[in-house]
Amino acid sequence: MRKIHVIGIGAGDPDQLTLQAVRALRSTDVFFLLDKGEVKSDLTQLRRDMLDTHIPERTYRLVEARDPERDRSAGGAAYSPAVDDWRSARADIYERLIVEELGEEESGAFLVWGDPALYDSTLGILEEVLLRGTVAFEYDVVPGISSVSALVARHRTGLNRVARPVQITTGRRLAEGFPEGVDDVVVMLDARQTFRQYADQDIDIYWGAYLGTPDEILASGPIAEAAPRIERLRAEARERKGWIMDTYLLRRNPKGR
Amino acid sequence: MRKIHVIGIGAGDPDQLTLQAVRALRSTDVFFLLDKGEVKSDLTQLRRDMLDTHIPERTYRLVEARDPERDRSAGGAAYSPAVDDWRSARADIYERLIVEELGEEESGAFLVWGDPALYDSTLGILEEVLLRGTVAFEYDVVPGISSVSALVARHRTGLNRVARPVQITTGRRLAEGFPEGVDDVVVMLDARQTFRQYADQDIDIYWGAYLGTPDEILASGPIAEAAPRIERLRAEARERKGWIMDTYLLRRNPKGR
Repeated sequence: MRKIHVIGIGAGDPDQLTLQAVRALRSTDVFFLLDKGEVKSDLTQLRRDMLDTHIPERTYRLVEARDPERDRSAGGAAYSPAVDDWRSARADIYERLIVEELGEEESGAFLVWGDPALYDSTLGILEEVLLRGTVAFEYDVVPGISSVSALVARHRTGLNRVARPVQITTGRRLAEGFPEGVDDVVVMLDARQTFRQYADQDIDIYWGAYLGTPDEILASGPIAEAAPRIERLRAEARERKGWIMDTYLLRRNPKGR
Repeated sequence: MRKIHVIGIGAGDPDQLTLQAVRALRSTDVFFLLDKGEVKSDLTQLRRDMLDTHIPERTYRLVEARDPERDRSAGGAAYSPAVDDWRSARADIYERLIVEELGEEESGAFLVWGDPALYDSTLGILEEVLLRGTVAFEYDVVPGISSVSALVARHRTGLNRVARPVQITTGRRLAEGFPEGVDDVVVMLDARQTFRQYADQDIDIYWGAYLGTPDEILASGPIAEAAPRIERLRAEARERKGWIMDTYLLRRNPKGR
C-alpha cells in the first residue's frame, strides 16, 4: 500500500521542525514539491535546504509540480466556487503525482508550511483523491508549528487571555465585522490589511511577516499608532522581496480602559 | 543577566519537541519542574524522560517545586478573582525560584505542555514577576505543538473549513452557549463534558485524551452517537489513571444537511 505523510514543517524557521517531522522526512521515498510560481521560490528553496540538512545522503526522489494559482479576483459570493474549481484542479495534479510517481510500496510526502490543520488544503485534496477511487493510499499527518504560534511566541504573548476564547479567521471575514463574542482574533490570509478598518478602536495589534526566517519583521502597539507603521513596513518588504506572508493578532481592550 | 526559556514541549509525544526546543533544552542550566501533585506525576516523569533523552550528559540542575492547585470550586463570577489569587501565589513561587536557584549568568527553563500561547499562565506569571521589580531577567518563548494541533492531526482533519473561522474556547464558556459566528469550536479545560449539552444538534465531535502518549484515546462521530461513547471511555480512563487531559473539536454542520 502506498503511504503518504502530510508534514507540517513550521512557519519558516527550519529549527521549528519537530523530531517527528524529521523522522517522517527520513522515511520518505518521494517528496512532492508544489511551487506556486517564481514569487514564492524562496519558500521552495527553504524546503530544499531542509531536505539537504536532514537527509544529507539524498536517499529520495524529488518531484516538482506547478500548483495552480487560485483565482483571487473572484470576490464575495463567488469565493467558494472559485475555491472548489481550484481544489479540483489541484486534486487532478495530486492524483497524477501519486499514480505516476509513487511506487506501490513507497512512501511520499507533502511538506506544508505551518500546521496542516490551519488554512491549508492538502488534507481536503487527499480526501478528494481517495474519494475518486482511482488510487489507494494510507496517509498520516505530522502537526507543525503554525504561523499563529510562531507569531505570538516572537511577541511573547498568549493567544488567549485568562479563561477567554480566541478566534482564528481570514482577512475577508474580518472585513465583514469584528467577530462576535471574542476580543482576541488572529487573522490569516489578509492581503488587504483589513486591520486598518479598526484603527479607531481600542485594539492592540501584534503583527509579523516572514516569521522565523532571516527576513522576519515584527511590529506591535495600539492599532491607531501601529497601523500606518505596519502598512509602511509591509509595502517596503513586499517591494524588496516580491512577496509577503504575514499574520496578526488583534487584542481588543475591555470597554472603558 | 539571567535568561529564561519558556519551552513548549508538545502535547505528550516526546517526538513533538522541535529542534529549536531541543537546542533550548541543551542550553539550559536549571530546569524548574512544577508539580501539580501526585495525580499528575506521570507528566513529571515524561518531562524527566525528555531531559534524559536529550541531555544524557546531565549537565543541568533540576529544581522541583509544588505548583499550587487552583481553587476550582469557585464558579461563575468568582472565577477570575480565584485565578488572580492563584496566579499571585504562583508568581511568589516563580520569583523565589528565579532569585534563589538561578545564578546571574545562568539560563533557566520552564517546560510547558503544548504551546505556551494557549491556556497556559507561565508568560503572564513571568511578566508579573518582572513588574514586581525584585529580580531582572530576559526571557524568550519556544513555540510548541499544542494539544489542539495534535488532536486534529490524529483525526486527520483541519481545524477550520475552507475560508471559515475557528474558535478555541473553554468548557465553561461553551456551557454558556455555542459561540456566535463560528461552526468549528475547539474546547479545552473542560472537566464537565459540556459537549453533552449539544447532543441533540447536528454536530460532529473529534475527541482525544492523553494525546501523543501510549495511553492516547481517540473517538469521533456525530455527537448524539459519540457522546455516550466518549463519556464511557473518559470515565474508564480516569478511573484507571487517576487523571485525564482531553480536548475536542465540535464541527457544526450547515443547516439542512
